[in-house]
Order: sequence, then structure tokens, then C-alpha cells
Amino acid sequence: MKESAREMASSKTRIIVVAPARNLPEGAATLVRALASRLYGDAVDLVFHAQCFLSEGHFAGPDSARDAAMTEAANDPDAAAVWFARGGYGSGRLAPDLFDRFGPAARSKKYLGYSDLGFLLARLDAAGVGQPAHGPMPNDIVRPGGEAAVARALKWLVEDDEGSVEPHRIPSAPRVAFNAIVLASALLASPGVRLAGRILMLEEIGEQLYAFDRAVGAILSSDAARGLAGVRLGRVLDTPENDPPFERTPEEIVRFWCDRVGVPYLGPANIGHDADNMVVPFT
Amino acid sequence: MKESAREMASSKTRIIVVAPARNLPEGAATLVRALASRLYGDAVDLVFHAQCFLSEGHFAGPDSARDAAMTEAANDPDAAAVWFARGGYGSGRLAPDLFDRFGPAARSKKYLGYSDLGFLLARLDAAGVGQPAHGPMPNDIVRPGGEAAVARALKWLVEDDEGSVEPHRIPSAPRVAFNAIVLASALLASPGVRLAGRILMLEEIGEQLYAFDRAVGAILSSDAARGLAGVRLGRVLDTPENDPPFERTPEEIVRFWCDRVGVPYLGPANIGHDADNMVVPFT
Repeated sequence: MKESAREMASSKTRIIVVAPARNLPEGAATLVRALASRLYGDAVDLVFHAQCFLSEGHFAGPDSARDAAMTEAANDPDAAAVWFARGGYGSGRLAPDLFDRFGPAARSKKYLGYSDLGFLLARLDAAGVGQPAHGPMPNDIVRPGGEAAVARALKWLVEDDEGSVEPHRIPSAPRVAFNAIVLASALLASPGVRLAGRILMLEEIGEQLYAFDRAVGAILSSDAARGLAGVRLGRVLDTPENDPPFERTPEEIVRFWCDRVGVPYLGPANIGHDADNMVVPFT
Repeated sequence: MKESAREMASSKTRIIVVAPARNLPEGAATLVRALASRLYGDAVDLVFHAQCFLSEGHFAGPDSARDAAMTEAANDPDAAAVWFARGGYGSGRLAPDLFDRFGPAARSKKYLGYSDLGFLLARLDAAGVGQPAHGPMPNDIVRPGGEAAVARALKWLVEDDEGSVEPHRIPSAPRVAFNAIVLASALLASPGVRLAGRILMLEEIGEQLYAFDRAVGAILSSDAARGLAGVRLGRVLDTPENDPPFERTPEEIVRFWCDRVGVPYLGPANIGHDADNMVVPFT
């Protein structure tokens, strides 16, 4: 396995990890470094930007430090990918003119993350910058079974491994994936995201069902969602009890709003805040 | 007090209470009836629509029943006001074509509520239907000191009492008020709300500070908020602990986003989920 993976990585691949939201524990970085080394040896140059380990309240350092690290990583001419370290909250606070600082090197990279990073994935997608993808992040290694999730992400980053990619697809329909509540905020804050003609995959964590219903309703009722090709539902996890009981499942909620706006519901998607989370390159 | 109030109510005022979100306990209705009778005797005809007491999961009856009651109340030719019974969640699920069912009588009414009812206030405002206002609801009578809040609402509904109206004002600037997270969803779901030239008052309850920051950021970054005359901050209450500590107060959060988008922060507003909540007629 290790040798074949090394052979598949045809040249040394440089990946830069930055943290536009919450910071990364040093211990997680150590585990991910060891995993990358085991999988790819010297064929992968995995760089954890020092900004990953900064801390300011909720964030991995002040907004300015997160802006600067993101810009530096995106502009690195030798890096093939920017990998987001961890979710939490904060990527929606990056500078509105961030992409004005991006040079040509930023346009040919992969950008991988999920959860709060949906703010950045949406902006990258709207601006046509690089290849945004929804998928596991380095901090996922601390989850039960999380090593498999991180290995999956690395295999997509390094090898474009098709086995890492979420398998549900309609050949003619491009796809995006987001956390529902993050997407609802991102669509409002970053006009320009357009979902027409695409399949939208949604996942959620730690939200009462009424709040999930509100986010899905707002997304599907929005101008940005007109002409969606369909919706798939990832995992909705760690849902606090709803008072009173909501009496509808997450799937019923998504079906309700799909019916309301006339968009096909296409079934489950293999994404979510867990070790099984697969990669969804935006297309 | 009772007699002068009766004199001020020059004719019998009919107010219809409906519940587009969560249902109203019978006990709350009884208390509000008694209060209205004490204040205004026969001069006020306070009608609790039977729909207020329906229950279906999270909601005061199915969406269709809430649509029908809202339409009936809005179209009542003898009613001066539609008063929303209680927040919770659900008013964002009313039919997209609801206002197509509204006749001329709907256009000359007051509509009073807050919290989840911001979905309806935003739609009424965007469509230019009636006089939307942010303020106390019948179910507030069960709060500590809540009778004062409900009396304040009645005095505005019946007498246009100026003492019930939130006092901060810049004479030339019109005003609106919303729960922050509800407004963030409403702006996405109901394109057409425009805040340019107006003062926006925001309040929040029961949300971690990162989620408040996310909602305020999305609102103020949105196209709808361009040209805002200013922002005032109501109470931010029952805030669950943020993990990690957010290290910014609600006022610092609002100031940050006001600075980011170049909108003046104008100080506090006397609104919120409490007995002091004053009425903000949208102007």
C-alpha cells in the first residue's frame, strides 16, 4: 500500500495547511504529519503554516493573520493545494478583498475543507479561483476512525484518487457540498454564488431541527438556488433535542423544501462531520 | 387610567390574534383578555383566532391552517390590527404566494410581533402591506413583568401611544427592527427587503456569540444592507457559553461589522426578548 501510493505520486507534492477558522492542536498536526509520511514518504511536502497554531479567542489568530496566511498559501508557486486545518468559526470574517491579493498561482490549486470553511469554498467557487472541494481536514484525525478520513483527503490531494470522491453522481450534473447553516450565511454575505444546474449536497451538525429547517428553507427559497438540478442529504449529526419535538426527520425537511421550490430530492450523500466524510470536488 | 384609556380609544377597536409560528397556551390568552378588558373594557374587541391553539409538532397547526388564519385575519374588514401570538419557529414556512390572497383590507392594518415573526414583518415590509411593527406579543404576558409589555403593545395597537414606541430616533431616518438570526434567514428567503436609508435595530436570544457574529456579518455584508443609515443594538439575552470564549461583547461584534461595511453604529435600542421590549413601527 505504502509503496504503491508512493509510485502513484509521480512527483513531490507540496500541500500547505492554513487555518482560516479555529486553530489546530499541535498533537493533531503531529499525527497528520506521521500519516502523510507513512503513506507518501518524501513524495509529499506537507507544510503546516505557523498560523495554524495561533490562538485569539475563537480564532486561529486575528483576522489579519488568517488573511495573510491564506494569501501566502494561495500564492505559493510550488504548492499544489491549500488544505484547511479545522472548522469552528471564522472563515467568513476574512477580508472582502482577499482574492484581490491572489496571483496566478492561486488559480491552479486545490482548496479542501468543510464545515465553516464553506464560507471560503463558496467565495472561491463564485470567483472561479482554483478547485474548491468539500472534504476532510487535518483535525479530523482526532475523531474515532479519523485517520481513514484524513488518508482519504490526502489521497485526493496527492493522487486525485477517484475512490476518495463521493460516488453519487449524475454524469451531466456538476456538484457542490456545504454545511447547511454555513451556506445560508455565505449566500447572504457573498452574493455571486450560483447553484443553477448543479446538485447541492448538504450536511449539518449540532443544530436543532427547527434551525436546520430554517436554513434549508432559506437556501432553497433563495435566488441563488433557482434552477438547482437536485439536492442530496448528507449526515445530520449531534442534533440537540428540539422543544417541542419537531416531528419531521432531516430527510422529510429536505423533501418538504424541495417540493416547495420544485427541485428534485435525489437521496443521501456520503458527507458529514464524521470519519466517512468523502471528498466532493466542486464541478 | 382605565377611564382615560377608554376615552382615548375613540371607537371600538378590533384586533385579531393569529399564530404563524408556535401556538399560544390558553392560559396566556385568558390573561391577555383580562388585561385588555381592564384597560379598555368594551372599547376593544380582542379576538383570539381558534388557530392560535392548534398544535402540530413545533407549530400552531399545519402550514395550511396558519396560512388560512393569517389570510382571514388580514382580510377582516373590521379589524384594525393583526397581532402575532407567539414566536418560536414557523412564520418562514407560510406560503410564498400568501400575499396574493390579501385584499384591500389587509393593506390598512397594523401587524405586530417579533422574534420568528421577523419573517413576516420582512415580507410585509418588502411588499408594502400595512404597518409592520416589531414589539411585544400576547405570550409575553407569561414573562416576569410581562403584563407591562403586553399593555404597551395594546396601547400602541389601540391608541397609537407614542410612549410605547422605542424612543431612539433620528428624525430623518426611518427604522426597522429584527431578531438577527431571523433577519439573516429572511433576507435570503425573501429577496426584496431593502434596508437602504434606514436604521436597523437588532436583538438576539439563546444563541452563542459566534452564531450572533455570523448572522450580523451576513446581514451587514448583504446587498440588502447597502446604504443602511445605521445600526442600533437591542438586548442579546440568554447567551449560551461560547467554547472557546468569544472574547468580544455583542456591542463589539456589531461595531466590528459596522466598521467593516462603513455603516454608523448608533448605540443601544430598547428592544429584546424581555418585558422592556418597546414597539418599533417600521418606517
